[in-house]
Amino acid sequence: MTAINSATDRNQAASLKPLMHLVASDMQAVNQVILDRMQSEVPLIPELAGHLISSGGKRMRPMLMLACSRLIGEPRDIHYKLAAAIEFIHTATLLHDDVVDHSDLRRGKRTANNIWGNGPTVLVGDFLLSRAFEMMVESGSLRALEILSNAAAIITQGEVDQLVSQYQVETDEARYLSIIGAKTAVLFAASCRIAAVMAGCSKDKEQSLADYGQYLGIAFQLTDDAIDYMSDSQTMGKGVGDDFRDGKVTLPVILAYQRGEKADRDFWREAIEGRRVADSDLDIAKILLVNTDALSDTLERARLYGEKAIQSLKAFPDGAVKEALIEAVEFTIARAY
Amino acid sequence: MTAINSATDRNQAASLKPLMHLVASDMQAVNQVILDRMQSEVPLIPELAGHLISSGGKRMRPMLMLACSRLIGEPRDIHYKLAAAIEFIHTATLLHDDVVDHSDLRRGKRTANNIWGNGPTVLVGDFLLSRAFEMMVESGSLRALEILSNAAAIITQGEVDQLVSQYQVETDEARYLSIIGAKTAVLFAASCRIAAVMAGCSKDKEQSLADYGQYLGIAFQLTDDAIDYMSDSQTMGKGVGDDFRDGKVTLPVILAYQRGEKADRDFWREAIEGRRVADSDLDIAKILLVNTDALSDTLERARLYGEKAIQSLKAFPDGAVKEALIEAVEFTIARAY
Repeated sequence: MTAINSATDRNQAASLKPLMHLVASDMQAVNQVILDRMQSEVPLIPELAGHLISSGGKRMRPMLMLACSRLIGEPRDIHYKLAAAIEFIHTATLLHDDVVDHSDLRRGKRTANNIWGNGPTVLVGDFLLSRAFEMMVESGSLRALEILSNAAAIITQGEVDQLVSQYQVETDEARYLSIIGAKTAVLFAASCRIAAVMAGCSKDKEQSLADYGQYLGIAFQLTDDAIDYMSDSQTMGKGVGDDFRDGKVTLPVILAYQRGEKADRDFWREAIEGRRVADSDLDIAKILLVNTDALSDTLERARLYGEKAIQSLKAFPDGAVKEALIEAVEFTIARAY
Repeated sequence: MTAINSATDRNQAASLKPLMHLVASDMQAVNQVILDRMQSEVPLIPELAGHLISSGGKRMRPMLMLACSRLIGEPRDIHYKLAAAIEFIHTATLLHDDVVDHSDLRRGKRTANNIWGNGPTVLVGDFLLSRAFEMMVESGSLRALEILSNAAAIITQGEVDQLVSQYQVETDEARYLSIIGAKTAVLFAASCRIAAVMAGCSKDKEQSLADYGQYLGIAFQLTDDAIDYMSDSQTMGKGVGDDFRDGKVTLPVILAYQRGEKADRDFWREAIEGRRVADSDLDIAKILLVNTDALSDTLERARLYGEKAIQSLKAFPDGAVKEALIEAVEFTIARAY
């Protein structure tokens, strides 16, 4: 095992604190832009948007964008505007996802659609998306606009793809990785790529940072998928078993289905079709996931993608910034332990 | 009455044909871009988007953009891409509106949300919006991007504003005009303004074309508001009385409420609160709208905005293009006769 391979093993108490500390003053500026730009003459808009924006999300994507910028230079005002735009795109996605999934809870709070209904939630998502593009235009960077508009199109395609496969238990691992590569990882990749573009990096370095974001995004989603069957609502801020009750086909389910006996497969098919929603069904699901090593193998996959993310940083100089970006990967995976 | 004032009077058999004829070859190119760009590896996306895109909408906004371009120059490939982007923004808005309003019918066909459900409809709307921005980025025009991202933000604010006022029968005329100026007219204005920007017109001419679009958009919406209480589902392609049953406060209702006796006001309040949804209630509403001159005054307002639209063209050279743009205004209003 190389030194880098051991990186994701060594630190199960990994924390986001070094990353947060590194970009603390930058994030103050970004938060100010976010607060300014979610305002509107229509009071319901900042009220609804603020409900989610102030609900304690970690703002991982802006933080990664700014940390990558610090790896290769110094963030400027234009970075703060683009970081806020990225967070708006992410927030719009969450608002629309919760409508699509009929979710009632997120981060331990009632969702916007649960409080205000689908209509205002869809429209405020649209508003944030438009505001994101306004800020990107103000940045004056056509390359940043290209990367983020392209990312937004890929995200929605991944989401529609997931919606279609939601009730198909035969979805295979490759298709699933392609879905989460689109719906989750692309915005991480775009955030990191933009840092390189704004610093005028070489194409190689741009691709390396994009790879870091892409692999980290996949590791992030796979870990989330596993956690949904592991933790309780206190630690996650969302109800455990949400994916199960929504009939979401995630990697743990795909592996357990592939490896299961006929009776197991019948169980999973019924679950994904929405006919297994009792707490006792979730208990059965957890047992099947453990017995088939589906959960541990999902986390092993997450760890491998985490290693690829860390490997992607090898061309960049060692130091506190790189250490913080590596520990962010370790933290992403350590959440499941 | 001036020659221009009489313009909206003279031609109640006005047609869109001159405009359509003028931009026929341009629109072939735009339609090709639209078909190309709604494709995706996820088959549900072109299926759902195509359902609305091929449902016989007139594509007014792209046509106006191209006709305005022909008033001052010659459209190029970049215009076709921007025209397709404008139609995608409009289509995304319609998809989301039908989710917000729980609409079952549009242009005489089942809505996408009625067929595929809210989830895919919201996401495909997001996809079209992202694709629109991709095309705008490809145009390379930061000014076009600025105008359209700004328009998109204003549209959503207008829609949220309308949603909030939907059940408030005391909404006044000024507020209503501000709402439709945002939710409907801004995209017309942006379409016409972009023609000027791409041709490198003076600021004055740019503003004149934007005014033409803005006033035409308001005339268009006011006429639609009146038609909802006038025609039947054959002529409109949507159920008559939709606004009434949705409790939508439109200008006819605002005027009838203001001018009504106490009993009338009670009726309207009950209607807007959703307690008057029978066919017999709609019949009562129609009688009250006629007796208070609310319908005819709404159409008179539409005619005045139509005149302002035509006035906005006075700095441009006479000829077939200007005639077609004038007749498009007349057609917009003549739909109610």
